[in-house]
Amino acid sequence: MKRYLMTPGPTPVPEEVTLSMSKPIIHHRTDEFKGIFKETVELAKRVMQTENDVVIFASSGSGAMEAAVSNVLNEGDRAITVNAGKFGERWGKIVKAFGAEAIELTYEYGDFAKVEDIENAIKNNKDIKAVYMQASETSTGTFHPIDEIGLMLKEKYPDVVFVVDGITAYGAIDVKTDDWNIDIGITGSQKALMLPPGLALLSVSEKAKNVIRKNKNRYFYFDILGEIEAKAGKFTPAVSLVVGLNTSLKMILDEGLDNVFKRHETLAKATREAVVALGLELLSKRPANSLTAVKSPENISSTDIITKMKELGVDISNGQGSLKGKIFRIAHLGYFYKPDILMCISVLEMTLKKLGYSAKFGEGIKRAMEIFLDE
Amino acid sequence: MKRYLMTPGPTPVPEEVTLSMSKPIIHHRTDEFKGIFKETVELAKRVMQTENDVVIFASSGSGAMEAAVSNVLNEGDRAITVNAGKFGERWGKIVKAFGAEAIELTYEYGDFAKVEDIENAIKNNKDIKAVYMQASETSTGTFHPIDEIGLMLKEKYPDVVFVVDGITAYGAIDVKTDDWNIDIGITGSQKALMLPPGLALLSVSEKAKNVIRKNKNRYFYFDILGEIEAKAGKFTPAVSLVVGLNTSLKMILDEGLDNVFKRHETLAKATREAVVALGLELLSKRPANSLTAVKSPENISSTDIITKMKELGVDISNGQGSLKGKIFRIAHLGYFYKPDILMCISVLEMTLKKLGYSAKFGEGIKRAMEIFLDE
Repeated sequence: MKRYLMTPGPTPVPEEVTLSMSKPIIHHRTDEFKGIFKETVELAKRVMQTENDVVIFASSGSGAMEAAVSNVLNEGDRAITVNAGKFGERWGKIVKAFGAEAIELTYEYGDFAKVEDIENAIKNNKDIKAVYMQASETSTGTFHPIDEIGLMLKEKYPDVVFVVDGITAYGAIDVKTDDWNIDIGITGSQKALMLPPGLALLSVSEKAKNVIRKNKNRYFYFDILGEIEAKAGKFTPAVSLVVGLNTSLKMILDEGLDNVFKRHETLAKATREAVVALGLELLSKRPANSLTAVKSPENISSTDIITKMKELGVDISNGQGSLKGKIFRIAHLGYFYKPDILMCISVLEMTLKKLGYSAKFGEGIKRAMEIFLDE
Repeated sequence: MKRYLMTPGPTPVPEEVTLSMSKPIIHHRTDEFKGIFKETVELAKRVMQTENDVVIFASSGSGAMEAAVSNVLNEGDRAITVNAGKFGERWGKIVKAFGAEAIELTYEYGDFAKVEDIENAIKNNKDIKAVYMQASETSTGTFHPIDEIGLMLKEKYPDVVFVVDGITAYGAIDVKTDDWNIDIGITGSQKALMLPPGLALLSVSEKAKNVIRKNKNRYFYFDILGEIEAKAGKFTPAVSLVVGLNTSLKMILDEGLDNVFKRHETLAKATREAVVALGLELLSKRPANSLTAVKSPENISSTDIITKMKELGVDISNGQGSLKGKIFRIAHLGYFYKPDILMCISVLEMTLKKLGYSAKFGEGIKRAMEIFLDE
């Protein structure tokens, strides 16, 4: 069965990347690999729009999230975490796991963080050391206004460390790390960077580094300063993934960052307007351009939609936690182009019809085609 | 730019096949390779539905076409060739190149051979030694009634050698080599067999072998009996392509021949009905299930359609010779499934609209979805 992967990570890996990863593996302590690693870090800085140091962990994205907590917070420290979905909830769990206190701002799933809520939380709680949140909350397909929040922090609370999980944002959405005052920006390999899972990237500002230097918490593997010092990996780096990252970052920069962001914007717009034209409702009040979360029609479980689409080879994602069965998520971050969206929308339409939802049959794909033509 | 290949050869190669071809290359005179070759021939016989010997040439399909002429016809011999397209025309050229006489039955492009025309041509011309024709004429997307023709020959002219170029038929359309009295059946690797170009397969009946044994024409490389005798290649076989063929034939047989034929039938039906729903006309009077040839709308060159589709990454084919600019051809043979057709039809619709043909916008893709749902 031919597979058509439309999930928000892992995402399809381009043949160019697979081929570069299939080249003979090289030893990680050679000058050759050190050169590749150094270049890859420089390419990552351009994609992440930062002059800050970028470290690459052999881990999933959650490893870098842990590093951003364990390296920054001491036992008893206080931090704001934004919980508007499963990944926001994870920030709270990690903060607690390292003995710090999480002041959790909770939003309904699909809602987004408001700058004034963050500001008030800092004002009303003493000694907030850091703010932890997502750029794009993958479980709900929501893009938080991290630009506004970052600029507010810079102006009013310049000592607070601003940590942004951009795992489904970097490389898909225009996230300006430095301009938006992001002290620690995080991403993973298996999203817009078009790689298999296994790498986490983390950018770290001078301000954050100063905080980390004074930190006394316990960690060994996820050692941000140690990674910077080691230059090409404190521990054995995931050699072939780094080589693949070198290729995929070059592909992104060759296409041009603005073109890449514009492509994601267009694919997202077509997906959103197509499902709305079908009479469906978006989950998010502020949808991200990296994935689209859609409420399942009444009396149809999204689990059935996903199962039926899989019968045709197309993989989309279910809701997570309490949203399971209630929403489905279509990814369009990374190696996706217009034909993929057209394919996915028509397979979705067929599936809905099979499941008894036949209103507006044909309207979704027509709308997607119109959006692409209007461009 | 991501590519979506919808051309009638080469066709997309499944990852399983690419990976098997990437395994360490083995020497062709080892027992290991001989075993793979022997098994591959047995698998090919099952896909070609024959008990006859099958030989595998390291060549394009035209090499096997040449073998079927040079091994069978002597200088001065007479043969019927069916010319209903570019590949039918090629039979005439090869027959003449080997000093034999081609009685060419010419049909308008898009038309198909009639069994009575073949019968009359044999009746009206003395000493016809062979009939050369296509199963599916790739230049027009036409399937000739080779079943009727084969059975007529068996009954009335059992000495005539029946040679069928099934290059865009075998593995996509139910061609019953033995039941339909096909003495020499030919196919190539880069079509329904889902491989890169480079291999030609040829099945040969006992009757044809007896004719070949008495033949005095000149050939060296394309030596059918020599290949049978050599067992694993008279000359260096294309080792990795043979390994890939072993994999792809197993994929076809695992899916089940009947399922594979049914899949091609459904994809072809949806493609045909979609373009008709758009108000376009099929070129062929007897369309093949392997590809669909469509007349370009008035005032729109098919060359422009193809160029515009390529801008979105989708490759379809132009007409050949006098049909260039007048028709376009969408392939659906080999590694194609419903999502590919849905993608291709919506990209075609968008392209037609861009070029000023906006009648029935959305009707084509809707029809394709309906066909798939009706199944």
